[in-house]
Amino acid sequence: MIDVPVNLGTRSYRIVIGVGALSAIGAELARLKVGRKVALVTDPAILALHGAVVTQSLGAASFDVTTVLLPEGERAKTLDVAASTWERFLDAGLNRSSTVVALGGGAVGDLAGFAAATYMRGANLVQLPTTLLAQVDASIGGKTAIDHPRAKNLIGAFYQPRLVLADTAALLTLPERELRSGLAEVIKHGIVLDAAYFDEVERDSAALMKREPATLERIVAGSCRLKASVVERDEQEAELRHVLNYGHTIGHAIEAVTSYRRFAHGEAVSLGIAAEAGIAERLGLAKPGVRARQVRERATDGHGSPPVHGMSCSAHPTSTSG
Amino acid sequence: MIDVPVNLGTRSYRIVIGVGALSAIGAELARLKVGRKVALVTDPAILALHGAVVTQSLGAASFDVTTVLLPEGERAKTLDVAASTWERFLDAGLNRSSTVVALGGGAVGDLAGFAAATYMRGANLVQLPTTLLAQVDASIGGKTAIDHPRAKNLIGAFYQPRLVLADTAALLTLPERELRSGLAEVIKHGIVLDAAYFDEVERDSAALMKREPATLERIVAGSCRLKASVVERDEQEAELRHVLNYGHTIGHAIEAVTSYRRFAHGEAVSLGIAAEAGIAERLGLAKPGVRARQVRERATDGHGSPPVHGMSCSAHPTSTSG
Repeated sequence: MIDVPVNLGTRSYRIVIGVGALSAIGAELARLKVGRKVALVTDPAILALHGAVVTQSLGAASFDVTTVLLPEGERAKTLDVAASTWERFLDAGLNRSSTVVALGGGAVGDLAGFAAATYMRGANLVQLPTTLLAQVDASIGGKTAIDHPRAKNLIGAFYQPRLVLADTAALLTLPERELRSGLAEVIKHGIVLDAAYFDEVERDSAALMKREPATLERIVAGSCRLKASVVERDEQEAELRHVLNYGHTIGHAIEAVTSYRRFAHGEAVSLGIAAEAGIAERLGLAKPGVRARQVRERATDGHGSPPVHGMSCSAHPTSTSG
Repeated sequence: MIDVPVNLGTRSYRIVIGVGALSAIGAELARLKVGRKVALVTDPAILALHGAVVTQSLGAASFDVTTVLLPEGERAKTLDVAASTWERFLDAGLNRSSTVVALGGGAVGDLAGFAAATYMRGANLVQLPTTLLAQVDASIGGKTAIDHPRAKNLIGAFYQPRLVLADTAALLTLPERELRSGLAEVIKHGIVLDAAYFDEVERDSAALMKREPATLERIVAGSCRLKASVVERDEQEAELRHVLNYGHTIGHAIEAVTSYRRFAHGEAVSLGIAAEAGIAERLGLAKPGVRARQVRERATDGHGSPPVHGMSCSAHPTSTSG
């Protein structure tokens, strides 16, 4: 297990990364001296894969667990789902000392985080991210949100979790498309924050796509450290944290016009990065060749499959995608 | 004008108290270097009384103001109203650098504060409280909320305003019942926090009910200082801040069973204080006579009107009200 601290004064917390991290939830939560009641928020597919280990660990530590099931994917991130989640918290007798445990990908974490942030002005929140994208990005830093029909993530809060447990064994069951979507985020961290880490990811991306346990753990921890350093310097995303939005302006637009159905988030961000890098080159803000290097990296993911954004850019040429 | 600082590190802000404070909103907001767009959130009755001075001041400082009207009173604090308020923010093109200005009593401040806290994960918030209760309590400390059909203030956030302007001239147009409701909160601050201030309020309550400008300003500032000191020591209401909930456990129950229609919030809290003091005496937690002194203070409000809670306690005797 690798421990990555996120230092935010009284709101500091730990990210614990490694195979088997999920089974530590009961003992880790007991250390935080929270109340006995826990709402486990997840979706049916994730519950089937990881529910038993989490509920057993919580039960062994004498927590009283209520499971709240969400629709899968982005359909979880609506105001109606938030309202029914609050209702379930109330039914279960949760109060501000209780804990909301978000088990799943970015959508589960966003909805559960928003529900926890706003229930009685804030219950405890623990993130158990099960996708690569959620482990390296969405579960860290306290961004929570629901979508508005007219804009993704329009309603939300900055609300830090008390703990993040990133079990890299969960990545073994992840569909390949999801793994690639997460790799796009890992690459983004390298591109915008740390050239040496970008080199490491370039070298290891084939091993990562083959899901070698040691590589998964090292890459996830490396990305978490970079993300944590950004969050520590700019918790409310006033300036620096915007660099991590690279690719998201156009990426979110792509998701919106395709009704969040056609592209995974990381795929849309990949398209956004390619488009934004192309724009930056044309405007003279980036050196020629920057976009090509970023696109090439996505094309050599160790499986020889065509890069998602390359494929889609040629299918949907636009004046901005170079 | 009296300036009361609220020291919360990077979330610090000022409370400016005095006759004419509302007309300073434009200049004060300009000093905060926020974006040009402002949503003025209020209700029709308050807009008729104070809208012109606020919009003129904001306009003179070149802010682009959109007015968002809420239903009056507690009916503003629903999820539907929050959703339509977000919609109006989106229509007006507000972003995270924009400012939500809450003009009104506690309900307006709670709803507008919650909408600001959750719009794009937090826009700027300025409180312009126009009732005594909101000036001495609700507008300070960042408690925002909406009601759930089953529990008052169930959904909300701790979200500090950037500025509070408490114009004591607004209290001149306040219905007497509202003024008395606020006085209950002022007395509570004295009872639980500062015996000397309680003595001062006892001495000045007749002048306050006569709305003498210097007395209003001094009493509001005194209560704001006490509230600020509590918020500074316990921003998230982990321990100390609970003392200010004195009377609220039973008070909220009274409001809920009467569907938030029969009693003003301060009236319900008055009843709650009388009941809770009576319980404390019976359990041996408070000296005999404490309740009597608190009830007597409310009976001598300078107008000879019967104290609200005395009247209501006899109309609705319960086993807990002593």
